[in-house]
Amino acid sequence: MSNKGPAIRHALNVKREDDFAKWYQEVISAADMAEESGVRGCMVIKPWGYGIWERVQRLMDDRIKADGIDNAYFPLFIPLANFEREADHVDGFAKEMAVVTHHRLIGDGKGGLIPDPEAKLEEPLVVRPTSETIIGDAMARWVQSWRDLPLRINQWANVVRWEMRTRMFLRTSEFLWQEGHTAHATREEALEETHRALEMYRACLEEDLAMPVVAGEKPENERFPGADETWSVEAMMQDGKALQAGTSHYLGTSFASAAGIHYQDSEGTQQLCHTTSWGTSTRMIGGVIMTHGDDDGLRVPPRIAPHQIVILPMLRDKPEDDDVLTYCEEIRASLAEQWSMGERVRVLLDKTPGKATAKRWDWVRKGAPVIIEVGPRDMENGKVAMLRRDQLWNADNGKPAMSFIAREDFAAQAPALLEDIQKALYDEARARHDANITRGLTHWHDVVNFYRKGGKYPGWVEVQWAKPTGEELAKVVEQLKGEKLTFRNVPRDGEAADGTCIFTGAPATERILIARAY
Amino acid sequence: MSNKGPAIRHALNVKREDDFAKWYQEVISAADMAEESGVRGCMVIKPWGYGIWERVQRLMDDRIKADGIDNAYFPLFIPLANFEREADHVDGFAKEMAVVTHHRLIGDGKGGLIPDPEAKLEEPLVVRPTSETIIGDAMARWVQSWRDLPLRINQWANVVRWEMRTRMFLRTSEFLWQEGHTAHATREEALEETHRALEMYRACLEEDLAMPVVAGEKPENERFPGADETWSVEAMMQDGKALQAGTSHYLGTSFASAAGIHYQDSEGTQQLCHTTSWGTSTRMIGGVIMTHGDDDGLRVPPRIAPHQIVILPMLRDKPEDDDVLTYCEEIRASLAEQWSMGERVRVLLDKTPGKATAKRWDWVRKGAPVIIEVGPRDMENGKVAMLRRDQLWNADNGKPAMSFIAREDFAAQAPALLEDIQKALYDEARARHDANITRGLTHWHDVVNFYRKGGKYPGWVEVQWAKPTGEELAKVVEQLKGEKLTFRNVPRDGEAADGTCIFTGAPATERILIARAY
Repeated sequence: MSNKGPAIRHALNVKREDDFAKWYQEVISAADMAEESGVRGCMVIKPWGYGIWERVQRLMDDRIKADGIDNAYFPLFIPLANFEREADHVDGFAKEMAVVTHHRLIGDGKGGLIPDPEAKLEEPLVVRPTSETIIGDAMARWVQSWRDLPLRINQWANVVRWEMRTRMFLRTSEFLWQEGHTAHATREEALEETHRALEMYRACLEEDLAMPVVAGEKPENERFPGADETWSVEAMMQDGKALQAGTSHYLGTSFASAAGIHYQDSEGTQQLCHTTSWGTSTRMIGGVIMTHGDDDGLRVPPRIAPHQIVILPMLRDKPEDDDVLTYCEEIRASLAEQWSMGERVRVLLDKTPGKATAKRWDWVRKGAPVIIEVGPRDMENGKVAMLRRDQLWNADNGKPAMSFIAREDFAAQAPALLEDIQKALYDEARARHDANITRGLTHWHDVVNFYRKGGKYPGWVEVQWAKPTGEELAKVVEQLKGEKLTFRNVPRDGEAADGTCIFTGAPATERILIARAY
Repeated sequence: MSNKGPAIRHALNVKREDDFAKWYQEVISAADMAEESGVRGCMVIKPWGYGIWERVQRLMDDRIKADGIDNAYFPLFIPLANFEREADHVDGFAKEMAVVTHHRLIGDGKGGLIPDPEAKLEEPLVVRPTSETIIGDAMARWVQSWRDLPLRINQWANVVRWEMRTRMFLRTSEFLWQEGHTAHATREEALEETHRALEMYRACLEEDLAMPVVAGEKPENERFPGADETWSVEAMMQDGKALQAGTSHYLGTSFASAAGIHYQDSEGTQQLCHTTSWGTSTRMIGGVIMTHGDDDGLRVPPRIAPHQIVILPMLRDKPEDDDVLTYCEEIRASLAEQWSMGERVRVLLDKTPGKATAKRWDWVRKGAPVIIEVGPRDMENGKVAMLRRDQLWNADNGKPAMSFIAREDFAAQAPALLEDIQKALYDEARARHDANITRGLTHWHDVVNFYRKGGKYPGWVEVQWAKPTGEELAKVVEQLKGEKLTFRNVPRDGEAADGTCIFTGAPATERILIARAY
C-alpha cells in the first residue's frame, strides 16, 4: 500500500492531527450527539449520543444484574448535615455543588420571578454530587445482622458537580452515571467486590465499547478521598492522553463508621461493615469518540450502536420509488430477524426526506457501522451497495469503498460482518494502545526528555518506582505536575518490578503508568 | 363455594376494607418497595419497587421506540427566564419548585456548612418540574424546515415539584417519569400523535400492568395549563377512587409560539409548529399496588415482575442441602431457558439465609407471581411444591393452596402459567372496574345521593352532560367539589349522548365520568 494514493476529501473540516480538541468538538456536532444547552455547564444529549449511552447502559446493567446486584433509587437532594459529617472525616472534600435554598418562585412585581423569601428552606439541600452518604444512611437502616450481608446496590442517576471549565461528555456540571455501593462483613469480601466491579468495567469497556483499558491501582495521591484503595480502568485516547473510564474503591470501614453501618456477627458482637463503591459515567462516551473517531466523524462499535445497519433508499420522486421502498423494507425485515453477538440485529430504514448521498454522509459522520444504499438498479439486480464505516475509503481511487453484494448474501453475512467490525475497531485501538506505552526509561530526566521531545502524541510511560508515600510522594507528584504529567495506575496484570525507583533510587516495588490525562 | 370457610390468617395486619390508606402503606413496607428517606418529600425506592419500575420502563420504552420515537436527555436545571415566559402565557402556572441559588458550600466557622455567599448565582436555576420549556428551546433550534418535521423526542428523567403532603409513589416531591414532546407541521398530525401516545398508554397499562383503564378527554377545567386538549387514562383503584395514570396533551401552537418553534413550509412560508406532550410516572406503581394488592400484600403481574418465579430451597444445615441446591439450580436453569409472553422467563433461586417458610411469606408479601419450594422429599420424588400468588388460599382448609407437581411438568407449564396469571389479574381488575361504573343517573341529586349513601367504595358514575364552559363549568366543578368529586374524562370509546345534561338540563352532548380521585 502506498501513502501517495489520491487525496481523500474527508467529511470533517478539522483533522485529528491538526487540532485534536477542535476535532473532538466537531465530531460531537457533526455526529449530532450533543450540544450546549444554554444552561451553564449542562449539555443536551441528542438522540444519537443518548442512544449510544442507552446501549452502554443496557449492556452494563445486564452485567450488573448478572452479578446479582439490585438497582434502587435514592433522593436527588441530600441534607447539608450529611456533608458536614463527610467534611469532618474527609480531607479532600469538594465543595462545588448546587445548593437548593428555596421551594417557591414568586412574581417580583416587575414581570419577573424570584425565589419567594417566605419559602426559604430551614436547611438547604444539596443536589447530589454522589450518593455515598445518603446510601450510607439507608445501609445503616437496612443492615442489622450478618444475615443482611452482603448488601449490594446500584443506582443509575444524574449527579451535579459545579464545574468552571466544561467539555461535553468529559466534564459537565450535570452528568449521568451509575454508582455501585456495597457493604460486607469482611475486608476480604469487600476487596473481592472491588475487584469484581473493576473486572466488570474492564470487560464492558473492552468487549462492548471496543476500548482497550489498563486495570490497576491508583497511587495514594489519586485515591478517592477517604478510600483505602482506589482502582481504575484507564484508556488511551488517540492523542496519547489517558482517560480514566471507571473507578472502584475499597472504602475500608471509614464510611461505615461515619454513617453507622454496623452488623451483629454470628457470635452476637457488633461489627463495622467494610464498604465499596464503584462508578462509570457518560464520560465513557467521550472515550468512545476519542478512541474510535476518525477524520470522517464517529465510528460506533456495533455492540453499542443504536442502529447497526442503516438502509438508505435512493428515491427520485418517480413511480418506481414505491418498489424501491418495498424492496428496502423486505431487506430491513430480513435483517431484523437475525441475531448478532447475542442480540437482535438493529437495523434502520431511513425514510426521512433528503438526497441519499447527503444522508449517506450524515450516517458516515454519525458512525453507523454499516450503510446500505439501494436504488432502482440495485433492486433490479437483486443487490445492495454496502459501505463499511471502518473501511470507508478505497485507497486506490480516493473514493468511498462501496461494494455491491447480492441481497441474500448480505443478509446472510450481516451478523458475522458486525462481529468483524466490532473486532476490527478493538484490534485497531489495541494495537495503538500497545504501541504507545514506552517502557525501560530508568531515570526521571529520561521521562522529562521523552515528553518534551516526544512529538505531539507521545503516549504513556511505564516506570518502576518504590511507592513513596506522604511528603515524599507529594514531591514526586509536584515533579510530574511540572511536566503536566500524572500517575495513572499500577497495572493489575503488570510485571513485577526488578529495577530501581526512578524518583528515589531505592529498589523499585512496582511498575506505574505516567501520562497526560483528561 | 361457601363464604363460611375456615378463617384465613392473612399476611398483613391491615385489611383493605378496614383502612385502605393504611393498608396501602403497609403493602409498601411489607413488600419492601420503598421507604421514607429522611429528605423532605423524597422516598427511597428499594430494589423490589425499583425493579418493578424498571420493568414498566423497559416495556414502555420498547413501545416508544417501536413507534419510532428517540430518547434524549435535557438539563436538570432550567433558567428562571423560561418560567417567566411560561408564567406569562399560562394562567395555572404552578410555582412550588426547588430553586438553586448557590454553587458552593463553605464552612460556617462553627463546624457546619453554609451556602457560600461569594458563590451566589446571578440567575437562580430551577430544578425541572417538567422539561416543556427547555425542550421547547431545543426544538426551536432544531426545527428549520418542513423536512425537520415531525420531531419526536422522549425523555426518562427525575423531576421535582415541591409537595406539602406526600404519599409514596402517588405524590412525592421528586419522582421519576417519561415525558414525550413532539412538534408537527399540522394540527391533524399533532392530534394523531396525541392519540397514538394515549393508545400506547392504554395498551401498556392494560397489557403490561394488567390495569384496566378508560382512555378519554379531560374537560376544560382539568386541562394541562396552556393545552388545547388533554387526554388521560384513568384507572379504578380497589377503593373505587380514580387514579390518573397517564396524560397526553395536544398543545396547539401556544407552546410553539412561546418557545419560537417555527418551520418553513414547502412554499417558503414561516409557520408555527403544532406540539404535543405526554407523560407517565412512578405514580403507576402506586396504581399497581391499589389495583392488584390484597390482604396478603402485593401481587405483581408477571410481565412487570422482576422475578416471575422464585425458588426456595428448604435447607436444614444437613449434608443433603448440597443436593437440594443442585436440584434447585437445575430447575432454575431449565426455567430460565424458557420464553413467556415474548421474553425469557425471569427466575430467582433465593439462597439467602433464613427459614423457607419465613422466606415464602416474604415473597407472598412482595407478590412474586409463582413461588416454588423444594425440600429433600420433593427432590426424591422429582417434584416441586408450587404456590400461585393469585390463588393463594385453599378455601376449604384456610391454608396456602400448595400443589405438588412433577418437576418436568412444572417447567413445561411455566410459560403458560405466567400468561394465565397475567390474564387472571387483568380479568379480576376488569370485572371490578366494569361492575363499579354506575350509569343511568339522570339528576344531580341522584349523583349526590349515590355518593352519600353509596357505602365505602362506591366507584364511578357516568353521566350525560352538555359540556358547559367558562363560568358555567366553574359552577359545576364547585358543585362536584362540595361532594369531594371530580370529573375524570369523557371516554374515547363511550356511547353517544341521548339524554339531557344533569347539570343544566340542556340536551346532552357527551358522557363523562365522575369519581373521587387520587
